[in-house]
Amino acid sequence: MRIITINREFGSGGRELGKRLAENLGFAYYDKEIIDAIAEKSKLDEGFIDKTIEEGAWKNYPITFNHTFAYMPLIETPGNTLISWQSEVLHEIAEKSDCVIVGRAADAILDEYHPFKVFVFADMDSKVKRCQERAEEGENLTDKEMIRHIKKIDKSRASNHDLFAPYKWGSREGFDLCINTSNVEIKTIVPAIGDYAKAWFGNF
Amino acid sequence: MRIITINREFGSGGRELGKRLAENLGFAYYDKEIIDAIAEKSKLDEGFIDKTIEEGAWKNYPITFNHTFAYMPLIETPGNTLISWQSEVLHEIAEKSDCVIVGRAADAILDEYHPFKVFVFADMDSKVKRCQERAEEGENLTDKEMIRHIKKIDKSRASNHDLFAPYKWGSREGFDLCINTSNVEIKTIVPAIGDYAKAWFGNF
Repeated sequence: MRIITINREFGSGGRELGKRLAENLGFAYYDKEIIDAIAEKSKLDEGFIDKTIEEGAWKNYPITFNHTFAYMPLIETPGNTLISWQSEVLHEIAEKSDCVIVGRAADAILDEYHPFKVFVFADMDSKVKRCQERAEEGENLTDKEMIRHIKKIDKSRASNHDLFAPYKWGSREGFDLCINTSNVEIKTIVPAIGDYAKAWFGNF
Repeated sequence: MRIITINREFGSGGRELGKRLAENLGFAYYDKEIIDAIAEKSKLDEGFIDKTIEEGAWKNYPITFNHTFAYMPLIETPGNTLISWQSEVLHEIAEKSDCVIVGRAADAILDEYHPFKVFVFADMDSKVKRCQERAEEGENLTDKEMIRHIKKIDKSRASNHDLFAPYKWGSREGFDLCINTSNVEIKTIVPAIGDYAKAWFGNF
């Protein structure tokens, strides 16, 4: 199977890029569907799963053990159960068909499949502009608040990703292609990225 | 004019990529030609120019001034004269036609032209392999020596680049596309990069 993983900075248009890339190549597309599948397996609440996976929250459950603080052994936390389910769901997806997977540390968890790893980023001005344009009615963040929001989400994404990967979220070394979408209309660049991916897969 | 600048890790195939990309797009290609042009203007030795530009050597001329060590003011060093010539030659090139320029801090020096900035890199194993395959007869570096050689050249390139640029050599933030060529045959990916560049220029 040919697997493309997309990691992305919040506001960089990475999700749109992933979705359009899947359409361009005729690949399956997975994003929130991963959370749904884990929810179905685990019977846990989707909101809880999303938050835990997105923020790597299981790192942060200190417990008292023999009168000292220790981190709860992963095996006993709901987080760890989530790790297993996350891994199981991603492996099932990987076996099914060619696909594009956005986020959820798929690049690291599916490393054995040698996925084409894409990182999408942009400068802050461009991300704020993209977020403000897409804000739903009633969402009225100032640019300053938006910047804080973007940074917070990216910090969570990095933290969760780096639990799984031997390279840092967003470090070019870990990725096959890093795409700067500053002031770029995503749909204009997708066909070339599709061709690049096809050429890249042809080498392996 | 549409300008593509290529910065690259030694052994990543960046020069080949630049050359093939220029052919693919019908753009002019500049690499060592820049050194030749500076030599012609300055009447300085090509080897000296190449070494000074590649290694940013002008940073390293300490002089005694008022009994304390100081760095020679740039204006008075041959290095600074070189900076002016380097800038002059690059601007002349930029005004001439669409082009691909490899190295020589063209990404930073020609920033006002809004070039499409590419960074080419690869993992160390892949770079060593590429270098060993291309080594000329008589060049017999062990892999360990080759790694040292690669690191030394990249350090020089970074040092020279960062004299001119407000972002670090190889930091994804400074570039529009970062391409990982590990185990990839350069010629297979060039047409898609050409299409990407055309699409990217269409946004500005």
